[in-house]
Amino acid sequence: MHNSQYKPIIEALVACAAECEHCATACLQEEDVKMMVRCIQLDRDCSAICRTTADALARDSDNAKVFLEACATICAACGEECEKHAAHMDHCRACAEACRRCEEACRSLAGLIY
Amino acid sequence: MHNSQYKPIIEALVACAAECEHCATACLQEEDVKMMVRCIQLDRDCSAICRTTADALARDSDNAKVFLEACATICAACGEECEKHAAHMDHCRACAEACRRCEEACRSLAGLIY
Amino acid sequence: MHNSQYKPIIEALVACAAECEHCATACLQEEDVKMMVRCIQLDRDCSAICRTTADALARDSDNAKVFLEACATICAACGEECEKHAAHMDHCRACAEACRRCEEACRSLAGLIY
Amino acid sequence: MHNSQYKPIIEALVACAAECEHCATACLQEEDVKMMVRCIQLDRDCSAICRTTADALARDSDNAKVFLEACATICAACGEECEKHAAHMDHCRACAEACRRCEEACRSLAGLIY
Repeated sequence: MHNSQYKPIIEALVACAAECEHCATACLQEEDVKMMVRCIQLDRDCSAICRTTADALARDSDNAKVFLEACATICAACGEECEKHAAHMDHCRACAEACRRCEEACRSLAGLIY
Repeated sequence: MHNSQYKPIIEALVACAAECEHCATACLQEEDVKMMVRCIQLDRDCSAICRTTADALARDSDNAKVFLEACATICAACGEECEKHAAHMDHCRACAEACRRCEEACRSLAGLIY
Repeated sequence: MHNSQYKPIIEALVACAAECEHCATACLQEEDVKMMVRCIQLDRDCSAICRTTADALARDSDNAKVFLEACATICAACGEECEKHAAHMDHCRACAEACRRCEEACRSLAGLIY
Repeated sequence: MHNSQYKPIIEALVACAAECEHCATACLQEEDVKMMVRCIQLDRDCSAICRTTADALARDSDNAKVFLEACATICAACGEECEKHAAHMDHCRACAEACRRCEEACRSLAGLIY
């Protein structure tokens, strides 16, 4: 049954979406917001595609591979940007980790779909 | 910190969204799809508002109460419909439970916001 | 047929969502981003609920009134904040207008639903 | 200014999302719903990615190309399925047309982004 098979990756996706939404908000509270603009923009993209991909898996979509590959690409970009600020900002470190975990989960599952 | 405070309800919201997406798909596989049309329609509504509300909480939205109250109302409607089919269909039983849990979580949190 | 009946309001909703996404991005480019934080946060909420409400109308949702009322409330809050910056920022002026138009359209239609 | 440049494609995207939501609902009203299951499933995917892509363009996303290519692929699949029912069902004909127009717009714009 798909629901149990997809459960861990759906969890990685929704965890990543939540970290991205939170990271964007926390970035807006930083003293130097200008430095965080690219991070905020990528957070917005990443949250949207993670959430959309989670829904697609939950509905057992025939387009799962398309969603997963787009999601992995965007998670990688967001994770890379957050990583740059990870040493000084907890929200970016948590977000970078969630992005990496989500990217890997997406790539693994996409690789299993013909 | 809001992230830890909101964590359980965000989990209830995303779990409910996933159950609703899955329930709609499973309803489409039932022999008598006609009987499930209202359930599918409510699943679509409920998934959308749960996901939107989860994002709003994760971003620490000032409109949290508005999202939560709309979400509770729609979870109640969806849970009530799924309940009717719960005796014969696992996906509706699981969805009804997720809706009830989510509705309660939304109402509790909404009640704490002035 | 619902599609033609709802067409103008769906247009107001998706126009408002697009203006909000654009306004948030444009606010991040402003010199004094700190002053725009509340605007960006409300833009994110407003875009999400407008898009969710547009989908709900397009699917002829039984919960249309719930979505419309939540949407009107959030459009009002976003429009009010954007209005404060409208004299100096084109994106806020355009967004404030889109929010007002959308709020009115939502309230009108919600009033027609028992 | 991006807003005017992207306006026609955002319109194609939100029009396609609305047709897909409407088509799924109308399919559920058809006598032989079983025959429409694949169409409904693809409508759900297509609505989600169109809406997500519209938001991404409106926010001037650096990942625009990723969203556009995923969107074009899913629009093509949905349009192909709707086309099969276009002779007998107005909602599928309208949806197939919206998908084709949206697919083309996505491919054109994706081709312009390095």
